[in-house]
Amino acid sequence: AQTTRIAVTPGDGIGPEVVAEAVRCLETLRAKHGLDLEWTRFPWPSHAWHEEHGESMPADALAQLQKYDAILLGALGDPGPMDDPDRYLLPDSISLAPLLDMRKGFDQWVCERPARLLPGARQYLADERAKDIDMLVIRENSEGEYVSQGGRLRKGTPDEVATQMEVFTRKATDRIIRYGFEQARNRAADRVSEGRTRTFRTLDGRTCESQVCLVTKRNALRYWGDMYTEAFDEISKEYPDVATHHELVDAACMKFVQSPWAFDVVVASNLQGDILTDLAAVLSGGMGVAPSCNLNPTDPDMPSMFEPTHGSAPDIAGQGLADPTAMLFTAARMLEWLGRKDPAIAAAGKELFDAVAADLAENSGSRRGTHEIGSAICERLSR
Amino acid sequence: AQTTRIAVTPGDGIGPEVVAEAVRCLETLRAKHGLDLEWTRFPWPSHAWHEEHGESMPADALAQLQKYDAILLGALGDPGPMDDPDRYLLPDSISLAPLLDMRKGFDQWVCERPARLLPGARQYLADERAKDIDMLVIRENSEGEYVSQGGRLRKGTPDEVATQMEVFTRKATDRIIRYGFEQARNRAADRVSEGRTRTFRTLDGRTCESQVCLVTKRNALRYWGDMYTEAFDEISKEYPDVATHHELVDAACMKFVQSPWAFDVVVASNLQGDILTDLAAVLSGGMGVAPSCNLNPTDPDMPSMFEPTHGSAPDIAGQGLADPTAMLFTAARMLEWLGRKDPAIAAAGKELFDAVAADLAENSGSRRGTHEIGSAICERLSR
Ligand SMILES: CC(C)[C@H](C(=O)O)[C@@H](O)C(=O)O
Ligand SMILES: CC(C)[C@H](C(=O)O)[C@@H](O)C(=O)O
Repeated sequence: AQTTRIAVTPGDGIGPEVVAEAVRCLETLRAKHGLDLEWTRFPWPSHAWHEEHGESMPADALAQLQKYDAILLGALGDPGPMDDPDRYLLPDSISLAPLLDMRKGFDQWVCERPARLLPGARQYLADERAKDIDMLVIRENSEGEYVSQGGRLRKGTPDEVATQMEVFTRKATDRIIRYGFEQARNRAADRVSEGRTRTFRTLDGRTCESQVCLVTKRNALRYWGDMYTEAFDEISKEYPDVATHHELVDAACMKFVQSPWAFDVVVASNLQGDILTDLAAVLSGGMGVAPSCNLNPTDPDMPSMFEPTHGSAPDIAGQGLADPTAMLFTAARMLEWLGRKDPAIAAAGKELFDAVAADLAENSGSRRGTHEIGSAICERLSR
Repeated sequence: AQTTRIAVTPGDGIGPEVVAEAVRCLETLRAKHGLDLEWTRFPWPSHAWHEEHGESMPADALAQLQKYDAILLGALGDPGPMDDPDRYLLPDSISLAPLLDMRKGFDQWVCERPARLLPGARQYLADERAKDIDMLVIRENSEGEYVSQGGRLRKGTPDEVATQMEVFTRKATDRIIRYGFEQARNRAADRVSEGRTRTFRTLDGRTCESQVCLVTKRNALRYWGDMYTEAFDEISKEYPDVATHHELVDAACMKFVQSPWAFDVVVASNLQGDILTDLAAVLSGGMGVAPSCNLNPTDPDMPSMFEPTHGSAPDIAGQGLADPTAMLFTAARMLEWLGRKDPAIAAAGKELFDAVAADLAENSGSRRGTHEIGSAICERLSR
């Protein structure tokens, strides 16, 4: 088997701090199990690189990264001093562009964000059932609202017209919906193997062990809303064992707050998925614990990218205060993903997940620094 | 002074039931104070009208409604039996179209949705500070994501491409942002007159008594995101007494859950405002209490439309179970709005609001029917 190679891109703000802890955990696992795993650190994409070179990453960045099996990314974005409006108006287009470039360049068409309220995580909802939240939000990650087509006519004048085009293809729609159904099946199988079950009802009254909820806004954005709905209804016929459900995005956000424990797999467009995943993240404990991954499940030559849902949090950067938990869950998910080729790596991913979850459960509410949390988890891994 | 005339359109599902209670309250107030107020009931727009006439409302519907000073709408939408997928796929485009037609036809360019967690309302968040939620979400209601431009190329084939155009004008952007700043000032003045104050910090460290938060997704939807941001930063200079704040829509949804009490006025685009208002509604007690209005503040010849945020809830329609509270708060807001010309009507609006709020506070958690709640409030109004 070939060595599994990871490109580590710490990025901006708290990115380097949380990535450092992830790398320590990887090293601990590598040494302990003799994993055939190596990693290379890149100073880009980052704001610092931009300041020096006038671009966030080198022109051949994607070509360099493509040689790796996965990318582990800290966080991007450096808005500079919050009281400088000139700088405040610039940053995102500079520093976040590489994120979208990687998603597009490597056709990472799935963004997968699991939301479970693990023991020890902060619970924002009053209802006790929130501890049963266990959903997977699957976001279409390759097109839709994020195609960056449009422009500004008569820019800066009172007669300005700004347009933004949303483009959805049936091909990308089908593949993300089918991916959702496959994940629903996988989750049901995992639950069975763990001795748990969940029950969902179909429209015609049958019961199933998993569910896919399609979110659109088809009553207002009807062209793609209708296409999504038709694709969903067709593909669902191939999965009679999976219950189906439709929600409009506004109602879905409401139900995420009212009864998030009722969802299993949720499939949504790029923008609506962005919104739903932030909401799901906070309902399952907040940004400090939410992992995220951008996957290309179809092309083995394209690396997938793993990043926590949180941003670069410039206000606390450099102080050793950032919670690395989300980053470590993200690293665990990366190992599981890479483990498709190497079972030892998959097992290490599971081990890392369990160690981070156990640490979270035992240290609920304690105020610990970035390095302290990383050390506790490394120590747990070396037991 | 001229008689104030209201067009009452009960609509579908629970619409007629909750509207009936609103009309009883209006009648009680009219009789009590000798208000110069009358109303006319219309059987459309509705699904029933559609079944009979092949369209949700007559061709001259807008011309008829335009003669009124306001429209009080129950709820639209009748998906039919939930287990009939054929019907399930149709309804929204049929039955909700009139809502969008009215907003457009009467240029109701503001959608205003206040969110306060009133005593007695259900609290979904664990944090006690949720009782301090007091925000006003102002949604751009005339363009943006809702222009219905786009189409389906190679419809129904595997090569289909669906497009949806978002169109934003600087004119509509300026007016909604300016409206937001005006409302922030009004709210600060109202608080002062009630002996309350709130404090918000500007980026440069000054303190203000009100705040406007602009929500966009400018890091991904940058054409209109940048235009919105530029317009906001320019207009904010006219309101040095109002603190300003920017959020990305995903982060805004997160913060609505984490610290909704920190928001004052929130300005957002049509779709993002739709999402944020549903979220704000649930955080302030749920759909059962959330009012909504579609306003044209600039053209006195155009009626504004008042509707609860909730839908037609076909599952409980006709059973007398629907909570009319949201509808009654909506009617109160309508009277306040109409009261701009007639102070007696404005006072009746305040009286209705207070009666509904008092009823809510006293009957928290009790299971009462639609008519019972309406009666209790009418009784309170006639004291
Ligand atoms: C940074 C931004 C462009 C990005 C997105 O909207 O996709 C982020 O919010 C995310 O969810 O990964
Ligand atoms: C029914 C639908 C088209 C409408 C909207 O999206 O505007 C509704 O959700 C609302 O918020 O009034």
